[in-house]
Amino acid sequence: MELTRRHALAGAAALAATPLLPNTPAKAVAPLADKQAPSFYRYKVGDIQVNAVFDGTTTFDLTDSFVLNAKKDEVNAALDKAFLPKDKMTLLFTPLAINTGGKTVVIDTGMGGAAYASSKGMHGQFATNLTAAGIDPKSVDMVVISHFHGDHINGLLTADNQLAFPNAEVLVPATEWKYFMDDGEMSRAPEGRMQTVFKNARRVLEAGLKKKATPYEWGKEVAPGLLAVESIGHTPGHTSYVLSSGSDKVFIQSDVTNHPALFVVNPNWRAFFDQDPAQAETTRRKVYDMLVAEKMRVQGFHYPFPGLGNIVKEGSGYRVVPAQWSPVI
Amino acid sequence: MELTRRHALAGAAALAATPLLPNTPAKAVAPLADKQAPSFYRYKVGDIQVNAVFDGTTTFDLTDSFVLNAKKDEVNAALDKAFLPKDKMTLLFTPLAINTGGKTVVIDTGMGGAAYASSKGMHGQFATNLTAAGIDPKSVDMVVISHFHGDHINGLLTADNQLAFPNAEVLVPATEWKYFMDDGEMSRAPEGRMQTVFKNARRVLEAGLKKKATPYEWGKEVAPGLLAVESIGHTPGHTSYVLSSGSDKVFIQSDVTNHPALFVVNPNWRAFFDQDPAQAETTRRKVYDMLVAEKMRVQGFHYPFPGLGNIVKEGSGYRVVPAQWSPVI
Repeated sequence: MELTRRHALAGAAALAATPLLPNTPAKAVAPLADKQAPSFYRYKVGDIQVNAVFDGTTTFDLTDSFVLNAKKDEVNAALDKAFLPKDKMTLLFTPLAINTGGKTVVIDTGMGGAAYASSKGMHGQFATNLTAAGIDPKSVDMVVISHFHGDHINGLLTADNQLAFPNAEVLVPATEWKYFMDDGEMSRAPEGRMQTVFKNARRVLEAGLKKKATPYEWGKEVAPGLLAVESIGHTPGHTSYVLSSGSDKVFIQSDVTNHPALFVVNPNWRAFFDQDPAQAETTRRKVYDMLVAEKMRVQGFHYPFPGLGNIVKEGSGYRVVPAQWSPVI
Repeated sequence: MELTRRHALAGAAALAATPLLPNTPAKAVAPLADKQAPSFYRYKVGDIQVNAVFDGTTTFDLTDSFVLNAKKDEVNAALDKAFLPKDKMTLLFTPLAINTGGKTVVIDTGMGGAAYASSKGMHGQFATNLTAAGIDPKSVDMVVISHFHGDHINGLLTADNQLAFPNAEVLVPATEWKYFMDDGEMSRAPEGRMQTVFKNARRVLEAGLKKKATPYEWGKEVAPGLLAVESIGHTPGHTSYVLSSGSDKVFIQSDVTNHPALFVVNPNWRAFFDQDPAQAETTRRKVYDMLVAEKMRVQGFHYPFPGLGNIVKEGSGYRVVPAQWSPVI
């Protein structure tokens, strides 16, 4: 075993610490493929099959105003701790498709077809990945919307402004609808981002539907097994869901948090897009304490794909333990 | 906002704690698809494209002898902490395919075609998922083997005992080859599992190759950018790799640990299949201290798919922080 000692593993650290392979000639190497895997993942909740279907990501330069009550340096430290690049923020989007009551139900829709080309495929992939998952958008019976931000509703429309789910009934939280369709609320909303949110919601939800959206109430099933749960703060009508079948369940949180590396780890951090940041924090802590106490699985729209995990308490915050990918459903 | 208060989120916890939906009629629901997504994931290391291609999992009843120095109860506690089922152990397998030096290189091969049918598709999926990833097994130029356990070499053969990679040169660690092909070593190895490992290695590597395997040495490149690193203990010739291109690199650990929920969290735990458990632990600690110090990415054959992550020190052990899935390569 002389070789063993001669190449003892202490060498690996040394090798890693020094420039590797200075004598390796540069070689042009063709990639084995030019596209990422179609990003979808299926799992069961009792009899219900959940398809987590990635819409992609968006990345922007980090500023001091992204988290209202944390400096850019603190946010950078949190990103670094999660082995994510500093000075940039990448948001992630994962809508769902489920089967229940004999119907195909989509929950939220991603950034939409119009976003796809302009983002060079970074986002707006939901319909493409849904099709790759063998689910024809024409076969979708219901689309359930959690709240009216563009990354959740814009996917109702294709790139050429057609209905992405032409045969689907679109269900929206009654409170969210009432708020965003109220001209008084709109007139009182600040200029800038909030006016944009109002205008975009009205554009997509009024012009872009086959018929009027169907409002739904909290505390009731939107579809068999899919219970709508109030989780306001992020928006006035923001909704989460408990999806259950038999004794099995998962909490579909929507935007109770955005990226877990920031807002699950630091539940007191307030993202600029939380419309009522104090209420959003209260909701966040209640939900996460419940998820810990119940050991309930959670599906996060803004978690890293595929977005399924469990929550542990850690320090003054929480941490997501991602679920293990299964080779079968 | 009366609705808001009436359905205040405290209700979610209450709902979660009580049986949900007692009045929901049972309904037959057809699944949206009958197969999991083809499980592959691509990322870049400098100019090199890594394809992590899932072979699947195997599950067996947990016994007191799986971890030599931890009782079943302690192992169950670790599984529970990771939100994994108790009383069972699920192992996971992720071989790789990379492009380097103008060649297509596979690293380890999974459980093989013969295992596929008998496992009902739980494992032995490597060739199928590789094909789904657009990589024809016939196009593979080199197969690099880390060590001679069946989950790494059996995939060299198809279900009908043909070459799974008919045009590939097969490269094996010189020390591993010398040990397992030595009749003296074999005669001195204990009956039972070790004899099986010897026999299986000889069957696959002697009968199943187009020509003889090509031995490679530690401290040298097996292919451009793919440096072989000694990491013995798991087997006498067990090998890891530093894959690098430009300033970018990843540590391909092979079996420095098995499932991270047990053996990264508890580096002192000794899996029954570590041939020299004390040496395996020494190697494990050296490698993981290096990964922490260097903040080097690690690709784990037995990590949850897709198996890429970073390591943080935590308590007396370590923890894997999984890399975030990217929608583009």
